Amino acid sequence: MLVRLIDSMSTTEPLAEVFSDDSVLRAMLDFEAALARAEAKFKIIPAAAARAIAQAAHPEDFDVAALARQTLRAGTPGIPLVKALRQKVAERDSAAADFVHWGATSQDVADTALVLLLRKAAAFMNADLSRLQSVLLRLARQHKNTVMLGRTLLQPAPPVTFGLKAAGWLGSVRRGHARFNHALSEASVLQLGGASGTLAALGKRGIEIGEEVAKRLGLSYPDAPWHSHRDRLANVVCACGILTGSLGKMARDISLLMQSEVGEAAEQGGSGRGGSSTMPQKRNPIGATLALAAANRVPGLTAAFLSQMVQEHERAAGGWQAEWATIADLVQSTGVAVASMAEAAEGLTVNEKRMSANIKSRRGTVFAEKATLLLSRKIGREAAHRLLEQATDPAQERDGTLSELLQQMPDLRDLIDKEVLRKLEDSEDYLGVAREFADRLSGSGPTRPHRKK
Amino acid sequence: MLVRLIDSMSTTEPLAEVFSDDSVLRAMLDFEAALARAEAKFKIIPAAAARAIAQAAHPEDFDVAALARQTLRAGTPGIPLVKALRQKVAERDSAAADFVHWGATSQDVADTALVLLLRKAAAFMNADLSRLQSVLLRLARQHKNTVMLGRTLLQPAPPVTFGLKAAGWLGSVRRGHARFNHALSEASVLQLGGASGTLAALGKRGIEIGEEVAKRLGLSYPDAPWHSHRDRLANVVCACGILTGSLGKMARDISLLMQSEVGEAAEQGGSGRGGSSTMPQKRNPIGATLALAAANRVPGLTAAFLSQMVQEHERAAGGWQAEWATIADLVQSTGVAVASMAEAAEGLTVNEKRMSANIKSRRGTVFAEKATLLLSRKIGREAAHRLLEQATDPAQERDGTLSELLQQMPDLRDLIDKEVLRKLEDSEDYLGVAREFADRLSGSGPTRPHRKK
Amino acid sequence: MLVRLIDSMSTTEPLAEVFSDDSVLRAMLDFEAALARAEAKFKIIPAAAARAIAQAAHPEDFDVAALARQTLRAGTPGIPLVKALRQKVAERDSAAADFVHWGATSQDVADTALVLLLRKAAAFMNADLSRLQSVLLRLARQHKNTVMLGRTLLQPAPPVTFGLKAAGWLGSVRRGHARFNHALSEASVLQLGGASGTLAALGKRGIEIGEEVAKRLGLSYPDAPWHSHRDRLANVVCACGILTGSLGKMARDISLLMQSEVGEAAEQGGSGRGGSSTMPQKRNPIGATLALAAANRVPGLTAAFLSQMVQEHERAAGGWQAEWATIADLVQSTGVAVASMAEAAEGLTVNEKRMSANIKSRRGTVFAEKATLLLSRKIGREAAHRLLEQATDPAQERDGTLSELLQQMPDLRDLIDKEVLRKLEDSEDYLGVAREFADRLSGSGPTRPHRKK
Amino acid sequence: MLVRLIDSMSTTEPLAEVFSDDSVLRAMLDFEAALARAEAKFKIIPAAAARAIAQAAHPEDFDVAALARQTLRAGTPGIPLVKALRQKVAERDSAAADFVHWGATSQDVADTALVLLLRKAAAFMNADLSRLQSVLLRLARQHKNTVMLGRTLLQPAPPVTFGLKAAGWLGSVRRGHARFNHALSEASVLQLGGASGTLAALGKRGIEIGEEVAKRLGLSYPDAPWHSHRDRLANVVCACGILTGSLGKMARDISLLMQSEVGEAAEQGGSGRGGSSTMPQKRNPIGATLALAAANRVPGLTAAFLSQMVQEHERAAGGWQAEWATIADLVQSTGVAVASMAEAAEGLTVNEKRMSANIKSRRGTVFAEKATLLLSRKIGREAAHRLLEQATDPAQERDGTLSELLQQMPDLRDLIDKEVLRKLEDSEDYLGVAREFADRLSGSGPTRPHRKK
Repeated sequence: MLVRLIDSMSTTEPLAEVFSDDSVLRAMLDFEAALARAEAKFKIIPAAAARAIAQAAHPEDFDVAALARQTLRAGTPGIPLVKALRQKVAERDSAAADFVHWGATSQDVADTALVLLLRKAAAFMNADLSRLQSVLLRLARQHKNTVMLGRTLLQPAPPVTFGLKAAGWLGSVRRGHARFNHALSEASVLQLGGASGTLAALGKRGIEIGEEVAKRLGLSYPDAPWHSHRDRLANVVCACGILTGSLGKMARDISLLMQSEVGEAAEQGGSGRGGSSTMPQKRNPIGATLALAAANRVPGLTAAFLSQMVQEHERAAGGWQAEWATIADLVQSTGVAVASMAEAAEGLTVNEKRMSANIKSRRGTVFAEKATLLLSRKIGREAAHRLLEQATDPAQERDGTLSELLQQMPDLRDLIDKEVLRKLEDSEDYLGVAREFADRLSGSGPTRPHRKK
Repeated sequence: MLVRLIDSMSTTEPLAEVFSDDSVLRAMLDFEAALARAEAKFKIIPAAAARAIAQAAHPEDFDVAALARQTLRAGTPGIPLVKALRQKVAERDSAAADFVHWGATSQDVADTALVLLLRKAAAFMNADLSRLQSVLLRLARQHKNTVMLGRTLLQPAPPVTFGLKAAGWLGSVRRGHARFNHALSEASVLQLGGASGTLAALGKRGIEIGEEVAKRLGLSYPDAPWHSHRDRLANVVCACGILTGSLGKMARDISLLMQSEVGEAAEQGGSGRGGSSTMPQKRNPIGATLALAAANRVPGLTAAFLSQMVQEHERAAGGWQAEWATIADLVQSTGVAVASMAEAAEGLTVNEKRMSANIKSRRGTVFAEKATLLLSRKIGREAAHRLLEQATDPAQERDGTLSELLQQMPDLRDLIDKEVLRKLEDSEDYLGVAREFADRLSGSGPTRPHRKK
Repeated sequence: MLVRLIDSMSTTEPLAEVFSDDSVLRAMLDFEAALARAEAKFKIIPAAAARAIAQAAHPEDFDVAALARQTLRAGTPGIPLVKALRQKVAERDSAAADFVHWGATSQDVADTALVLLLRKAAAFMNADLSRLQSVLLRLARQHKNTVMLGRTLLQPAPPVTFGLKAAGWLGSVRRGHARFNHALSEASVLQLGGASGTLAALGKRGIEIGEEVAKRLGLSYPDAPWHSHRDRLANVVCACGILTGSLGKMARDISLLMQSEVGEAAEQGGSGRGGSSTMPQKRNPIGATLALAAANRVPGLTAAFLSQMVQEHERAAGGWQAEWATIADLVQSTGVAVASMAEAAEGLTVNEKRMSANIKSRRGTVFAEKATLLLSRKIGREAAHRLLEQATDPAQERDGTLSELLQQMPDLRDLIDKEVLRKLEDSEDYLGVAREFADRLSGSGPTRPHRKK
Repeated sequence: MLVRLIDSMSTTEPLAEVFSDDSVLRAMLDFEAALARAEAKFKIIPAAAARAIAQAAHPEDFDVAALARQTLRAGTPGIPLVKALRQKVAERDSAAADFVHWGATSQDVADTALVLLLRKAAAFMNADLSRLQSVLLRLARQHKNTVMLGRTLLQPAPPVTFGLKAAGWLGSVRRGHARFNHALSEASVLQLGGASGTLAALGKRGIEIGEEVAKRLGLSYPDAPWHSHRDRLANVVCACGILTGSLGKMARDISLLMQSEVGEAAEQGGSGRGGSSTMPQKRNPIGATLALAAANRVPGLTAAFLSQMVQEHERAAGGWQAEWATIADLVQSTGVAVASMAEAAEGLTVNEKRMSANIKSRRGTVFAEKATLLLSRKIGREAAHRLLEQATDPAQERDGTLSELLQQMPDLRDLIDKEVLRKLEDSEDYLGVAREFADRLSGSGPTRPHRKK
């Protein structure tokens, strides 16, 4: 029962597993085992004690429900965890029990466990992010020449290509993925400071021991403990926030394209997805919906984390105690956005016919800017803009297209070349550098991002 | 395993139970049973079908883990729930199964279940809030005359009473409790709208049926369904946000008073609370810490909910799908703040000796305002303020108290009456209407709150 | 230059005036004048001093730029304000200058000024809110029978009426307005506490003086000063947050209806509104856009305020110093949402033809739920749902409407009465109690909101 | 009047200037001038027109108040700006006016102007950040051996050095500064996309022209326009959020150290800073207070920006219109935090005597962990912990120090070496690797941050 019903639209199964009791407990025990081994190596505790501790550090033997209850009492998971582990160790080797958690403090195990969990979560997210980027790259290339309406403020604008739209999604997801990986790598550092962050209980060998613990856990060793400096975690949190924002943008676009009145793209339904409890005709944009739900949820969680950064002295009263739940919520919401958009993109149906029809149905009005620029050179910009405003006034439901209307205006007939007027509503003729931009975003053209001239 | 380890500092056991799978499922099934009963009453569905549905609507028979998984696929808990309930009913009465969820939509069951859960949660929170207010009232009365330093911007200021401080906490908790109850009562309304919110599938009797469902569930019947109008829920969310802010303020005060250098109040330790994994001397402000953690977490969750209010047309794509997790998180965090402060207040030790000593240790400087006012009438305000700034300059570590220093100033000796100077540092003489304010806040004096003149 | 360019999409002219230097300064000076008058009445300060203070308390004589600069240095507007006022008073009556701000503290003037500004802002917002509600009431009545597609998750659903949609907007705006007024009234209380919140400098007459000051400023007198208890302000903030969420929902609906592919409603353009710098054909949903911008902005500002509630002891270090800017931003954003939606609603064009055509274009599929319910009674729900899913599969582009398709199915022909099938796609026949709900929301029907059975 | 009174605790003078009307207008005009010049270079518009445009592009000639008012009507600053610029150009050269803003769209000028303003703001922030880091480095080195109490959950813990505390601040500010610079550099890209983001109006030379515009403005040219992809800006916003969180942590520490009961550090007062309007004795932590105010405010603004990332298609309806105000608020709040902490750090007085006295006043109890570890090896951990809990029970007000008490326990006398007991309360003997950590954070030791083993 890893996914709880109440959270069931705000997580994925693999991520629910990452933050499950078993997984959280395992991460904490891994820290304790690694600490004991490292301390034994440097003769701080007996080798036999380290062995006994490592052997006892198995989550399945623990009463996790009791641990959770005691954590609420203690205000930290470290105290009950250490107590329970001591008991388990004592069952094997009573002398060894004394060396559990030697020289460490509660926050050392809690923070390091959190970092281990983040890395575990990231593995799943990275897989989905890679999948998503592959599909978007495919869509960008496949639809390089698929022309569709541009839409600004939800109103029709000159055409773009669907390839450019997909490439735009790809670009922001790529940048977001890079930021996430960079932030995660920066945050993948051991926390080990002892009571006050000086490792006083380990004498002069604290750093060497810390380096050994980090190595055993596959983490980097930071310049110093970070018990009340949470900026590295905040950076991971923010990277999730930005990424989810980008996925939300993509999701909004898809949900809008999927409106029956627009009909230009559709998520695939399939196994349990997209139906309605009461309306058999429904094909709902479920992937987009879940990503949008995440995009609604994550900014507030990001703010919660940033608020928690104001942490007192060597350990906060209130600042870090809310971090576990906040980060777990945020990572799971980010993960559901990534997974949903990967699935949505993979199954996306693109309806080129509707795209083309939707442009046509605008009767050339979206080329009014083009006509203005043409006419500006002849009759001045202001006159041209006013003329085109009249010609495209939606209040006047005329029959013809823009070029037909313009051709009927006696004054204009001579101003614009017939051939030019004929091509006025040719989308191909008004795509500018849409394809070049798409190529650059896709990395297939001569992309030199962030060049400084 | 109701409290998960990862959430264990952000919930309480009773509230974790409220949002547990069993409880959530039960709330949804209660809705389905009440709906069927009401529809049978109005002959929309056969009475036998309603009986069968009500009999099948027991959470223990369901595979909740499967429901949670399917909810993520479906983007709504309603679809898998209805499907599973139909199967359970069909096992008893295959004809009856068709009448499950008749005329309702997914969001009807999800929203109404959420309201039922909120009321269940509120029962626990109300109990803790009442406890908290009783203790604060006791503290306010008991310490009516307990004089302590006022502190502004964390610097010493003229004295207040601890009674006034407690009464101030009480006042804001009371107002917050009233707002919470009011918001909850406003939000305790049935959601029943059917596919588009018109109850079309129930013909012309939709409202009567709705009123019957509401009655059966102990809810009010609103003017109309609120599937995409979430302001009543938002009001509950905000009431939690404000209440947690007030509790956070109280918690911060306690954590500050409990600093060893201040030592004016202390939370009780006791069973599993307040200790350290490594420091035997520690008595940590755990109640305050957990409330502060909640106060860090809840504002962001409030923002998340408010962001979700922008919901499209007759059902949102993204807006409501994140509400369950967000509200559950927020209510549990609020609940942990309430419970923690109730416990902290109940066990609070007030150290009147230290309060008195801390005032003394200021050597009268906190009465500089009083001296200024006295002197202003003699030598003018500016001269008085400047003179007192010099006399109280912390950079000059003098031995005497303020009144002693003033007495030594030859120019002043004649300006201020000796008796007055003697009483300068008498806290009792400079409490203004502290006790009257405390009484008014406590409701024991002639409180006439919000009188409009 | 009241509206700054950088804020020009996040305020209105009247609200920018409310929070302008002149207005802020005036509110602070009004407090100082009222305080002096009240103190003179109770013989705390000389009547002549009070007169001189009141005479000097005119914003136009002050160097506001200097005040703003000094405020940043002082960390409070009170100190430089009082200093400047003393100078102005001294120019008239040097003895009087000493009695400026007598017994009050910086936060007294800052907080009371904020309350006065909020009331001033509310006057403008109330006017717009009333306008908005009048128009929505008119729309709800006028379009009682205007049938349009319901839309859930942005997909077609059974029909609703535009009257119900407008009534839904109205209902939430009404509730929001009521909450705002209630919160504002609760917060319209004087802040007067002196250095530590005990009014020590005013001796035993603090409360009487406070009542007099409140009376002079048109405020209520609270049970006690609220210098570090900010829940009443938080309630105003939250009421703004909820209201803006409701306006954002309305704005989203309008922006979606205004899509050219949907075309069911449109904001009016007119003087400087809705155009494009480059596209002459554009009529942009500017009102909706500005309201949506506010709805994006306000939740975070709400969170910021709630975070600031954790205020230390008798005056916060950090908590209240960010309130001015936060509340001003939030109120102005709320105000722009209200004003924009009032204007948008007033000019809203409703295109009944397109509404009707959009239903038709669904070829009856939105009545699949209705058909399912009909068929369920004959062939069982599951069979019916499956059959309708096939009949309405968007993947199969068939020519006929749903009822035509059903009529062609040999098995069904005999199951459903011809007359019934004929009426299957009659929207009028499937509106349920849409009109009753709209009436109840509009208050024209037998509304008994929040009835508890 | 650059700093408004209402914002006067949430900005600095230089940053208020950056976001002043004049500066904002100048940034927009710089874009238009650079665009015209680039277009002339590529023969898109006449060279004479470009010259005329560049000559007219001077803010002092414009009616900014009118622009701000019209922006609210238009929903974008671009439209009124372009209109006004055309008028100014026409006054010089009527033919040239038509070529203003050629091929660009409103958002191009608004977004690029925002980027230019961010860079201008960053220059001021960078200067303050450098100052701050210099002082912190000095403090870290200077107080390498200044021993003080560690404090966890605001309770006494084993000693640390003030050098380590300062180095911890330094480390997080350094990382934050690096993130800010990196994000800013990534975001320093031109926005130029034209109506739909394809630069259609510029034919095939859009990219070359864009590169030229970027060069002229000192910006990089991105892979593609980013009109509805806001992740680069979001990254700047988040970097500000994280940095302000770190500064808030430092500010909280200082405000706590500055409590009169602690008295270990103090901000300098000086010109207009730190006083009280009523209490002459006050020296308030104004720098810390303003930074804490910012740290309360910025997380919500960050959330607001992230919420705005969900932007529709080729231009958002609501998403970007709130960005200007949000970013300006956030950058100014971040800036005030940086400036305040730079000033606070520069003037920080460190009171080593009080640090030492505060440790002493704990009567050795903070060395209970040390004693436990010593005793654990003799009598087992549990017994040791229990014994020390008793010995350090704050409820028992004993006279002696911990080592004295332990010496009096007959059982212990023989267990611990006298010499060891004597050194029990020697802070120097229990600092672990505090100095090494401080060195690593300060970069003076063998720092190899983020080493991966």
